[in-house]
Amino acid sequence: MKLPVLDANLMLRPALGESGLDPARLEGELAERFRAAHARVEARRAEGEIGFLDLPRAVQASRRVQELADSFGQLFENVVVVGIGGSGLGAVMLRDALLAPRWNERTAEERDHFPRLYVLDNPDPSTVSSLLDGLELGRTLFNVVSKSGSTAETMALYLVARERLARRVEPEQVRAHFLFTTDPDRGALRRIAEAEGIATLALPPNVGGRYSVLSPAGLWPAAATGVDVDALLAGARAMAERCMGEALLANPAGLFATLLHAADVEQGRSVHVLMPYSDRLRSLALWFQQLWAESLGKELKGPTPLPALGASDQHSQVQLFMEGPHDKVVVFVAAAEGGEGVPIPSLHGETEELGYLGGHTLGALLDAERRATTEALRRAGRPSLTLELGRLDAYSVGALSMLFQIATVYAGALYGVDPLDQPGVELGKRLACGLLGRAGFEAPAAGNGDPRWRV
Amino acid sequence: MKLPVLDANLMLRPALGESGLDPARLEGELAERFRAAHARVEARRAEGEIGFLDLPRAVQASRRVQELADSFGQLFENVVVVGIGGSGLGAVMLRDALLAPRWNERTAEERDHFPRLYVLDNPDPSTVSSLLDGLELGRTLFNVVSKSGSTAETMALYLVARERLARRVEPEQVRAHFLFTTDPDRGALRRIAEAEGIATLALPPNVGGRYSVLSPAGLWPAAATGVDVDALLAGARAMAERCMGEALLANPAGLFATLLHAADVEQGRSVHVLMPYSDRLRSLALWFQQLWAESLGKELKGPTPLPALGASDQHSQVQLFMEGPHDKVVVFVAAAEGGEGVPIPSLHGETEELGYLGGHTLGALLDAERRATTEALRRAGRPSLTLELGRLDAYSVGALSMLFQIATVYAGALYGVDPLDQPGVELGKRLACGLLGRAGFEAPAAGNGDPRWRV
Repeated sequence: MKLPVLDANLMLRPALGESGLDPARLEGELAERFRAAHARVEARRAEGEIGFLDLPRAVQASRRVQELADSFGQLFENVVVVGIGGSGLGAVMLRDALLAPRWNERTAEERDHFPRLYVLDNPDPSTVSSLLDGLELGRTLFNVVSKSGSTAETMALYLVARERLARRVEPEQVRAHFLFTTDPDRGALRRIAEAEGIATLALPPNVGGRYSVLSPAGLWPAAATGVDVDALLAGARAMAERCMGEALLANPAGLFATLLHAADVEQGRSVHVLMPYSDRLRSLALWFQQLWAESLGKELKGPTPLPALGASDQHSQVQLFMEGPHDKVVVFVAAAEGGEGVPIPSLHGETEELGYLGGHTLGALLDAERRATTEALRRAGRPSLTLELGRLDAYSVGALSMLFQIATVYAGALYGVDPLDQPGVELGKRLACGLLGRAGFEAPAAGNGDPRWRV
Repeated sequence: MKLPVLDANLMLRPALGESGLDPARLEGELAERFRAAHARVEARRAEGEIGFLDLPRAVQASRRVQELADSFGQLFENVVVVGIGGSGLGAVMLRDALLAPRWNERTAEERDHFPRLYVLDNPDPSTVSSLLDGLELGRTLFNVVSKSGSTAETMALYLVARERLARRVEPEQVRAHFLFTTDPDRGALRRIAEAEGIATLALPPNVGGRYSVLSPAGLWPAAATGVDVDALLAGARAMAERCMGEALLANPAGLFATLLHAADVEQGRSVHVLMPYSDRLRSLALWFQQLWAESLGKELKGPTPLPALGASDQHSQVQLFMEGPHDKVVVFVAAAEGGEGVPIPSLHGETEELGYLGGHTLGALLDAERRATTEALRRAGRPSLTLELGRLDAYSVGALSMLFQIATVYAGALYGVDPLDQPGVELGKRLACGLLGRAGFEAPAAGNGDPRWRV
């Protein structure tokens, strides 16, 4: 079991040249800056405000998750997680990183009889009707995830799913097709569950949606599809230990946050690209995007996280990264996967444009692409970080997810914003309620604006 | 048949307040600025350099596409497009926008016996082996797309696919499982096709990868899966006509480019978010990202395109858009879809948090979310544009894709960069060849850097 390693050489002057930060600062001023941020985080932690740090040790919760996964997993062929934002992104991230590719297209045997796993987040009518029409609902469990129990999109999808179910199964069976993951005491979902005897999992009140991947919100769908949840939590636990100290150069989460913050506020490198070289980590970049954007984007501050995927984005975004404004840092994630043995055959050896490829593996090609892009950026004076993941498995993904979450709260302290709130989304929610006629909510005036500026 | 409409009101002072641009400038200085950019584009067009503008009228090419689609479509159950960057993104965009959701999971009857459509872009070993193991290769056609015929990732995937095929079908049958889309005269793919009698489609030499969605690169996979290619081209043709004039306020592509350019260079709004409210347009945002990033990101200039998805990103990125730095413009895409009739049932009417939802449709909910978010951004002084798509169909998608492509060449002229080249990706390609031992290419020195900065 090896923890991911953060390589920061290409943020620093010796390797990067003039664009780099002075490495002496890592043992001086930046170390000091981090120490202060660390103290602020420790203080909040001591107050019990940073609940996600306790999740890897929440033995009882993870046992309940596993029990409910074992019992439900046997009964259902399909699991549909209904949840948006942090209530869906973690489940998607774990599914895509840790289950076999094209999981839902595999036969039951190929899935070792674990269920298919869908995540419905967006109330898009064509997605929803297509999915619900396509599933055998009598063999489907809906895991509805909302901490507040009142998220409009999630509640609407729950209502639609419930009515569809009611048409297919006996009335007294409907409740058995639901599992609610919500606040332990409050909210509509909790009340409905209690009234009807629907199974539930509790989201700890001090764990926000975007920090919930290691809570039952993320763990249950993973456990239900056979992911080794113990390994996931063990990786997270080990990384949390590694990221607890105040010494900058022994704390990968601290170093990650400190370097990205400095690049933003000192050099205007406000776009933070997360670029894994692995299809299986594409969703990790989307999960990280929510974490970084919603935690740090407030009070007119906050970097812009930008997901990318190697090698694909070498043919899309990398031109901009190489020659555009000096406003980005690229964070590479290098994963050595089990499948890397796929050999490239030596065909068309007489054709110079193909001949050199034969004899390598696809994994080696992908790795060469990553190293080449890293080096090209370096020569262009563009800083990068590399997270070396080693094996892509539950342990390393658990560790990586913890590194990012801890880095986010450190970054909040460095930027001087509260990484645990999201006040900026309330107005839109209220206006949507108003437009839908919910009592007590303002509906904005309609108005198409000046027709001259509609073209 | 209705063309998409660009609503620019929320970029302008009357509606947006002080953050807005002065609308008088649209009839003065900005109109003048656009007229000059328009003239530069017209000059290049007259030289035959902007090939994509001719694609909607390339009758012969589209007839050949349709013929090859009709003949191959009957024979194969699966089509795998092998292409990266512009050679894959257009096909993915059209598939996701225009085919029924979960197309590849549907039965042959549900697909009207059109083939499944996969796009292999990344040489990720686990994706590749999973897909090739899972397909019945004897019923699979590989459409290899590379203009140069030498793209490393694409060539490697072609070699792997070819060897797998050779194990499953008779040697003389292998060539019939390939269709090459490449330069009409040059490159390795062209030479192999000629030597072996493999079917080909020609990519016009004056059409670059990211402008190739309406060339055989994008059209053939669409036609093979039953998309109405004539309607797609008709929409593109109509939009191209609409976007040809030099009058800013009668040219949606010109207005799009001029406003986003001004917001960037005058107000520092350098992040351009494309946020469709439709799952089916999620890939459109990725396709646009390549177009905007690779065309404009050069000479230390260029905005950063950022894909988003409504309503999902209201629970992820919108916090940053609302309260982060004033460095963004959000471009909404509003699509009214056929499926919007999915009704939300009136269940749990006694529960206040759910009761107001019943009686609406999911489409109405999604639309209310979009309007609410637009209004919330406006109140926060954050500018936005809205593209009203009307019906999401081949005509409107063809039109929209043309609007974005023309806007991109206008934006190139406004930024003063060449929107048709991508010099910044060459170094990485060369270094990758070096690392793989291709003769005549430099391999960068290995070196793990200073171990102190590896944590």
